[in-house]
Amino acid sequence: MKLKIDGEALLRDLDELAQIGANPDGGVNRVAFSEADREGRAWVNQRLRELGLELEIDPAGNSIGRYPGREVLPPIALGSHTDTVPNGGRFDGALGVLGALACARALRQSRVRLRHPLEVINFQSEEAVVSGTLGSRAMAGLLLPATLDQRADDGRIVAEHMRAAGIDPEGLLQAARPPGSLAAYLELHVEQGGRLASGRIPIGVVEGIVGIRRYRAHFQGFANHAGTTPMEQRDDALVKAAPYVLAVRDVADSHGIVGTVGTLTVFPGASNVIPGAVTLSVELRGMDEVVLDAAQQELVELAATGGGELAPLTRKAAVPSDQRLVELLAAACEGEGLAVLRMSSGAGHDAMSMAALAPEAMLFAPSLGGISHSPDEYTSPEQCVLAVEALLAALLRVDEAFDRGAA
Amino acid sequence: MKLKIDGEALLRDLDELAQIGANPDGGVNRVAFSEADREGRAWVNQRLRELGLELEIDPAGNSIGRYPGREVLPPIALGSHTDTVPNGGRFDGALGVLGALACARALRQSRVRLRHPLEVINFQSEEAVVSGTLGSRAMAGLLLPATLDQRADDGRIVAEHMRAAGIDPEGLLQAARPPGSLAAYLELHVEQGGRLASGRIPIGVVEGIVGIRRYRAHFQGFANHAGTTPMEQRDDALVKAAPYVLAVRDVADSHGIVGTVGTLTVFPGASNVIPGAVTLSVELRGMDEVVLDAAQQELVELAATGGGELAPLTRKAAVPSDQRLVELLAAACEGEGLAVLRMSSGAGHDAMSMAALAPEAMLFAPSLGGISHSPDEYTSPEQCVLAVEALLAALLRVDEAFDRGAA
Repeated sequence: MKLKIDGEALLRDLDELAQIGANPDGGVNRVAFSEADREGRAWVNQRLRELGLELEIDPAGNSIGRYPGREVLPPIALGSHTDTVPNGGRFDGALGVLGALACARALRQSRVRLRHPLEVINFQSEEAVVSGTLGSRAMAGLLLPATLDQRADDGRIVAEHMRAAGIDPEGLLQAARPPGSLAAYLELHVEQGGRLASGRIPIGVVEGIVGIRRYRAHFQGFANHAGTTPMEQRDDALVKAAPYVLAVRDVADSHGIVGTVGTLTVFPGASNVIPGAVTLSVELRGMDEVVLDAAQQELVELAATGGGELAPLTRKAAVPSDQRLVELLAAACEGEGLAVLRMSSGAGHDAMSMAALAPEAMLFAPSLGGISHSPDEYTSPEQCVLAVEALLAALLRVDEAFDRGAA
Repeated sequence: MKLKIDGEALLRDLDELAQIGANPDGGVNRVAFSEADREGRAWVNQRLRELGLELEIDPAGNSIGRYPGREVLPPIALGSHTDTVPNGGRFDGALGVLGALACARALRQSRVRLRHPLEVINFQSEEAVVSGTLGSRAMAGLLLPATLDQRADDGRIVAEHMRAAGIDPEGLLQAARPPGSLAAYLELHVEQGGRLASGRIPIGVVEGIVGIRRYRAHFQGFANHAGTTPMEQRDDALVKAAPYVLAVRDVADSHGIVGTVGTLTVFPGASNVIPGAVTLSVELRGMDEVVLDAAQQELVELAATGGGELAPLTRKAAVPSDQRLVELLAAACEGEGLAVLRMSSGAGHDAMSMAALAPEAMLFAPSLGGISHSPDEYTSPEQCVLAVEALLAALLRVDEAFDRGAA
């Protein structure tokens, strides 16, 4: 008998969780550590207990539901998060947690045990509102004590948010699991981009999470009277910066990565004063560090020839998925008769942290119009069920293939 | 005997006035109605009295020094202002007032009377810090009662500034002089642009003050995740707005006017969010309303084809100088052996108000590097003396030519 996802139960779970922190416009407010977030987590914990899973709340506040396996092997974990951005959507994070729950339910209701123990993880604080991927970084041992004092978007420090939620902040530093303690980590998430939806492809297999490089570009001009200074005597910083906005687009395009100018500030900024200086942000994201290096070099040179300069601010390396897992996930999806798009993830996820602890890979479900972090976020009921069926198929493949012949 | 300006006295006056409200960096703070402004005005009043001029402080607080003429004719007025922007320069306004004083001194010391009575006017509040050209608008009868309640840059209303300076705000509405009460108004001012300085031309004759049109351009895009949204699926408002910044420059260039994008705001304005909307200011200045109309039409069309729109905000008509005065001033300067540039003024001046009351024209002295409203504002001693000699020569020509055969 083939294991099947209970689609109705999955969709009911999605509906019920979306009521917690719901806004009248269909959006969801479950910012990490808020009352609604705690209520959402408690609701998931209760579902895990109802399935008879053994529930652990680790010192960082991550919820882990355990379903035993047949062999003495490290567990395979499925997970994601139930916190949201302010006025976020119903699917970002929730689909991965409730999909993992649906996989456990399918096994439990058919009284099937895998070779590996199974873990369903609901990570604490994934969205970058208080501190991004906080719970998964804690579990992977990637946190430094200084994280406790970082300021959230609301100005309060992380430790204060945790204490308000009844969690000892020091727990963040005690939640690390040793490398090798998991056989694999799989995460289903909505794409948050429009590639699957526009291509009418039901599932994406994530080959890695992009590297992110952020820069500040500065163009210096000379502020002067906008009435009395003839055009040919102007040194207008905005006239220098404008072509650079287009250059960032063109360089990203030509290298097959994404590049964004998301902020631009004009000094002094008055309608009757010629701009004396312009500062703008540049962000590049791509999987291949060599490609990012080349794009960066071009943009440094273009800034200089355009009378400005480009200075690096922050840099996060790309995190490639485990290649063996990528092949297993793609094969599992194709085995379900699903067309697969192999793609990179342009956003960070808990899987990025978990890569430090175990082989990991992700599945993406389509996002209508590529919209996320918005009440308009939408993945259809059919797409949700298909994606969770793909997750279950992937879990079975990985359970079968991994740790064969290992101790 | 040819009348001559006392150059040493002029330069001493400029030095002494610059001490009032002086900053350590060479800048001057005599914001209208401030203590330093009142001290500066009192200092000028004292100089007028010392020359034996009859001093009137009109109800708006304008200072008028009167030197009698030989015939029964309306007076010719020379004037400008001694208030400054915050941390402004030593020459903007001051040169015109002290130049007028120097002309009166030349007449007085040679015991020469003109056909017309002469007025030396130090206008109240010319800079747009409290309310621009306030005193001259009051004298020309251009003020409405609502002006008293307009807010200055510091948030206080005009009436409050005046009361703090011991002036009854209602006086602004009682200072109007009847049309025909002046034969002519002449004003010497620093150019505040770089055309005279870069062309090494000692004097400009102003053919008019430009019209000013201000607009707001809006470009709508769709805010989305800068990591997960592929380049080809973006609707980036800043990528739409950037070419428009260059279009404003090009359209102004091609029409021989000036055009400036001085402010630009990106929404939501985060380095990891594709700009969803951009708003920017457009300002056009030019003498010819037909040319301004044509440039405006092009920019409306270019905004539309670029996916945005251009909406008008404010519009001030150009104020042409009196053509007969322009010819007399140019002839007077050439009679002094000075090369003349006929030019428009890109900035507003008290002369703009006075055009409602009398024929007016202006002379410009060079501004080093076109810099004004700054401690770096500079016109050399030689240039100051030459310009005031040109003003005196112009005054004599106008006195000779005007009102011949009139009642």
